[in-house]
Amino acid sequence: MDIKQYLKNYTEFIDQNIDRFLPKGKPSILFEAMEYSVKAGGKRLRPILVLESAKALGKNDINDIIDIAVATEFLHTYSLIHDDLPAMDDDGLRRGKPTSHIVYGEAIAILAGDGLQSYAFELISKNEKIHPKKLIKVINLLAHGTGVFGMVAGQTADILHEKEGTFDDIEFIHIHKTAKFIQVCCHIGAILADASQEEQEALANYGLNIGISFQIQDDILDIEGEEEKLGKKVRKDIEKSKLTYPLVYGLEESKKLAKKHVQEAISSIEKIKNPEVLINLAKFIINRDV
Amino acid sequence: MDIKQYLKNYTEFIDQNIDRFLPKGKPSILFEAMEYSVKAGGKRLRPILVLESAKALGKNDINDIIDIAVATEFLHTYSLIHDDLPAMDDDGLRRGKPTSHIVYGEAIAILAGDGLQSYAFELISKNEKIHPKKLIKVINLLAHGTGVFGMVAGQTADILHEKEGTFDDIEFIHIHKTAKFIQVCCHIGAILADASQEEQEALANYGLNIGISFQIQDDILDIEGEEEKLGKKVRKDIEKSKLTYPLVYGLEESKKLAKKHVQEAISSIEKIKNPEVLINLAKFIINRDV
Repeated sequence: MDIKQYLKNYTEFIDQNIDRFLPKGKPSILFEAMEYSVKAGGKRLRPILVLESAKALGKNDINDIIDIAVATEFLHTYSLIHDDLPAMDDDGLRRGKPTSHIVYGEAIAILAGDGLQSYAFELISKNEKIHPKKLIKVINLLAHGTGVFGMVAGQTADILHEKEGTFDDIEFIHIHKTAKFIQVCCHIGAILADASQEEQEALANYGLNIGISFQIQDDILDIEGEEEKLGKKVRKDIEKSKLTYPLVYGLEESKKLAKKHVQEAISSIEKIKNPEVLINLAKFIINRDV
Repeated sequence: MDIKQYLKNYTEFIDQNIDRFLPKGKPSILFEAMEYSVKAGGKRLRPILVLESAKALGKNDINDIIDIAVATEFLHTYSLIHDDLPAMDDDGLRRGKPTSHIVYGEAIAILAGDGLQSYAFELISKNEKIHPKKLIKVINLLAHGTGVFGMVAGQTADILHEKEGTFDDIEFIHIHKTAKFIQVCCHIGAILADASQEEQEALANYGLNIGISFQIQDDILDIEGEEEKLGKKVRKDIEKSKLTYPLVYGLEESKKLAKKHVQEAISSIEKIKNPEVLINLAKFIINRDV
């Protein structure tokens, strides 16, 4: 299969559904700012992983879980808006476009991020097709993976260790800032497909490993990537003395590590129903140039 | 009953339970910052309203819903931390103590707020005693009332109209920024007490009206209050040309309006099982000096 083309079509499909679920209301600038950042592009990796994990475990009809997939993109966008703030990473450009606080000012950017977080949970809580018991589990995993035991902890550690850090620090940052959320996306896909405990664990392990690889590859692209393709400045991690895998392990060792985690991801899903797409996705993560 | 003493004891009870449910983890500064702001004091009005609304409708054992009550205080604290940020209201003092960004810096303050929001939803999703269907309704109402159709919308409007605004604007701000969240606290208390649809509506109407009164009284205390008792600067709304009820309606008319909403709150709960405490609470809201 041509995974690149497959993902391109998938991204378009997610984008159409983002349009369906983006909230509208007043004050209009709040909703505009939310829409601006959500629609600024992106690979839509998290919603794709929710849906593909469910499909990989035999769920054929994904119509009743698309809102949940979209909610993961809202959570991801909230984190990007806040990460880009002057007090945080102070980034003026993302995906080739000015960031939220550049366009709308800091106050609206903070509120747009806050609003996307709460709306993600609101959207999931409005789903009437999935059993409430499963929805609670989904909310629990997402709040955990994006919250103080996941993404928020990772971003805090990232800021604290901007100048220096150990192997343990870089691992903590990458696992918490990126990998746990990606892990949760795969895990909830499995739950929404009524997967067994064993299958859920397989998907969670797959997600954790591709999540780590994804972040290592991000660090590598900051060094080797092309600015035009990525839509953001390269070498900015180095400029800001950010703690990255290449900085701690060197470039070649980082590439090996990324590959190792992809292999572990693939071997954890060997026994599931339809592993093909997820295997291709895992391989794509370390071959991507965007 | 001596409502002031009753509330004082209640606040201590909530404070003890906040200690039980505050998360602990790494990086420690994130959890410290969350704890600092949650424990900086406060009337604990929202958790008290959740529990008292449930009790007013006949729920005797509140042990299985205290975590949900505490979660509302986490949501409230997240909003205070973000509201105080330099890019927002730029407040250096709250409840007599330096605000989060003064103590921990802006980045950690933003993350502590983000983390308290996600942890509120995580905490509710961990409750195993309340039926998942009810928990989903609770999450839905809280995300709605504190999110882009509630508190976040109100704070956005507040910032947009800092210099001028109409009667409609001030009403929009107060209803969205404060009243809707307070309304939701009463509403979920009713839901958690297995209340009928009619009782739920009565409590929601009660909550909306005391919420509006509460915010009008806040505006009045900014003019007439004593700095020492309030633990924050008075006359800062005027200094910042904030849109307030006294500014739009005048002080006397504002007091009348606050009283009118308290009366409407009281009359909406006339027929419920045990309305006494809620009636006293409503009266206290416009008689308070803190």
